[in-house]
Amino acid sequence: MRMLPPVLYFLKWLAITLIIGALAGSASAFFLVALDRVTAYRETHERLIFLLPLAGLFIGLLYHYFGNGIAKGNNLVIEEIHRPSRIVPLVMAPFILFSTLVTHLFGGSAGREGTAVQIGGALADQFSRWFGVAHRDRHILLICGISAGFASVFGTPLAGTVFALEVFLLGSMRYQALFPALLSAIFADQACRLWGVGHTTYPVAAVPAINIALLGWTAAAGIIFGLAARFFSVLNHWLGARFSRHIGYPPLRPLAGGLLIVSLLLIAGTRYAGLGIPVIVESFTRVQPPETFGWKILLTCLTLGAGFKGGEVTPLFFIGAALGSCLSAVMPLPVSLLAAMGFAAVFAAAANTPLACILMGVELFGSGPAVYVAVACVLAYLVSGQRGIYSAQQQKDFKTGLWNDVSAGANTTP
Amino acid sequence: MRMLPPVLYFLKWLAITLIIGALAGSASAFFLVALDRVTAYRETHERLIFLLPLAGLFIGLLYHYFGNGIAKGNNLVIEEIHRPSRIVPLVMAPFILFSTLVTHLFGGSAGREGTAVQIGGALADQFSRWFGVAHRDRHILLICGISAGFASVFGTPLAGTVFALEVFLLGSMRYQALFPALLSAIFADQACRLWGVGHTTYPVAAVPAINIALLGWTAAAGIIFGLAARFFSVLNHWLGARFSRHIGYPPLRPLAGGLLIVSLLLIAGTRYAGLGIPVIVESFTRVQPPETFGWKILLTCLTLGAGFKGGEVTPLFFIGAALGSCLSAVMPLPVSLLAAMGFAAVFAAAANTPLACILMGVELFGSGPAVYVAVACVLAYLVSGQRGIYSAQQQKDFKTGLWNDVSAGANTTP
Repeated sequence: MRMLPPVLYFLKWLAITLIIGALAGSASAFFLVALDRVTAYRETHERLIFLLPLAGLFIGLLYHYFGNGIAKGNNLVIEEIHRPSRIVPLVMAPFILFSTLVTHLFGGSAGREGTAVQIGGALADQFSRWFGVAHRDRHILLICGISAGFASVFGTPLAGTVFALEVFLLGSMRYQALFPALLSAIFADQACRLWGVGHTTYPVAAVPAINIALLGWTAAAGIIFGLAARFFSVLNHWLGARFSRHIGYPPLRPLAGGLLIVSLLLIAGTRYAGLGIPVIVESFTRVQPPETFGWKILLTCLTLGAGFKGGEVTPLFFIGAALGSCLSAVMPLPVSLLAAMGFAAVFAAAANTPLACILMGVELFGSGPAVYVAVACVLAYLVSGQRGIYSAQQQKDFKTGLWNDVSAGANTTP
Repeated sequence: MRMLPPVLYFLKWLAITLIIGALAGSASAFFLVALDRVTAYRETHERLIFLLPLAGLFIGLLYHYFGNGIAKGNNLVIEEIHRPSRIVPLVMAPFILFSTLVTHLFGGSAGREGTAVQIGGALADQFSRWFGVAHRDRHILLICGISAGFASVFGTPLAGTVFALEVFLLGSMRYQALFPALLSAIFADQACRLWGVGHTTYPVAAVPAINIALLGWTAAAGIIFGLAARFFSVLNHWLGARFSRHIGYPPLRPLAGGLLIVSLLLIAGTRYAGLGIPVIVESFTRVQPPETFGWKILLTCLTLGAGFKGGEVTPLFFIGAALGSCLSAVMPLPVSLLAAMGFAAVFAAAANTPLACILMGVELFGSGPAVYVAVACVLAYLVSGQRGIYSAQQQKDFKTGLWNDVSAGANTTP
């Protein structure tokens, strides 16, 4: 491989990433359109949420009896990057696609990046079989799949690239896969757009010139975002462990979780069901009360902890934007800026991917708020603790000298 | 240190980075103003260039007899990050400041980031002495100094942060110093702006929507930028080695180099003397002929190889912008976009800092050209070879499977 002439190296990865990009981008396009339809249908047929427990039972049975070895989802893809053992089953793609749509149709509070990453990862990994990709290149394929999935589902190719390079290690980044990851991200994003599928835009108003006082407020907001992410990760793992411990038969967990979620949705309102894009957009212009992000944290952790499918990221956008919006009641920063900061920073902190989120901020909100978003993301990342939402993430370095729980979960990469 | 409660960790680094930022930012402000005056004076007194050989002799004598241990400049700062041995002498700051101004007054073709990085590094490293910073934190101080210097001299805090984290390793990045580096960069940038010192803006016109064909052209341009950077690095090292080999007494090297440079400036024209900001700005609107970047490569490598001071980065901006501008004669991309791509990508490739340059592109040109700039930077970085302008940079990973010269210079970090 190292002797391969440069031109062949380029052509090889160009061909592979074109195919990965076309497949993953088209899958994301289909997924996004289907998700839109499913969401619109649920919004006009609100009583569907009463069927959420049954939908949960169905997903539970599906994964229990036919999803052998793919239930770990995102963590499986990340684990295979670290310790390649066997090719990610292609069946992961239709399973996660279908069960995410079911989750959203009946009002579970979940995201979509998990779905896109798993579809991208499963598709990309098939090249290990077909094209005789060397064993040492297999992790690059998985990174390409993650990059393609993330980039196309959010319309952010640079954030997708850096997310894929950042997510499997904590506290460092390696550039070995930089070129294939970037190509996969751009091709997938292009493929999704060629299908005519667009992405939500978020209205960030004029950004004030930065100064020391505003920096202080930004840092304070960043710390609050990080603590919210920490709380989310802890609650997510804790609820998942409760379900596993108290309900021995896995298919019954989403059934029980579904019953809880429906009861809570009846109290909180259906704006917390599904992706919640309208509430995210609203957070950029209207100050949200604290219960907006509080309910979303609880409902998302219940949904995912119980075994529904979809991922954490869009709910984390929701939680961050609503929390930022809420903070604008007490902080002298515009509501849209605080919402944008929270949108990026809570996710940065929960996934331990600060640079990807800074770039995502640039791609979604332009370069104006970039320094604010960067300060919020880095502070949030610092205080969110070592263990994020992806438990398969390995710690290359200690995150900081900041928390003394670092040694607890420490393991280094081989 | 790991037991230090979070609040103390924050306050400690807040205090340290505030001081580093204030000092390095103020030094950059003074330096930029002085550089402006010196450049304006030379432009109205063009015959000063005839004194360049004598100015070279003067700088050579200064460093030979009084600059013991600081002549390695940027590489000394980078080496101390890897193998801390002794504190960077504070005298490095006035030496590099003064000799850079002399270089520019008499028309040497050099930059300013080397100066800013060395001033920042030397200032920051003094904390190792004064504040009882633990030995294991000393490299963080040096990273803060680089970050502060780079951020304030170019007005790009995010690029400064990532540059400082990226520059000392090749092929990977570690986040240990992320928080202090970001704070130092923002504080230094703010300090420089508080002195009323602004930065050049570059006019990037409307950016076309990306598609596969334009991506192909962008990749081709990126490869050309990378090869230009490779040529620059090779010529730079080669000329430096020639001077060392053929002229035994170091102070005579810049004297001889000065004679050569003056002769060439008489042929090429004084637009290649100094920083060359007007030519960079012109490259964004008017297509440049090939000799523009050709002359600049030759004159900069002579200037720095002979022992004049200042750094490589602004000349690399010049070379990249002029080369991109030149390529717009044959590529279906706007001249300002190609100039912006070259501006970022040639530097990314020569310094092996692709992510810093993507962020610099965003900070200088906005988010519009970001994907173009990213593709150009990553391609350029890939093809520029393992050895960039900073020979002290260590290789954490092989850059790619692309070049088989990788094993030649390979050494891994401890």
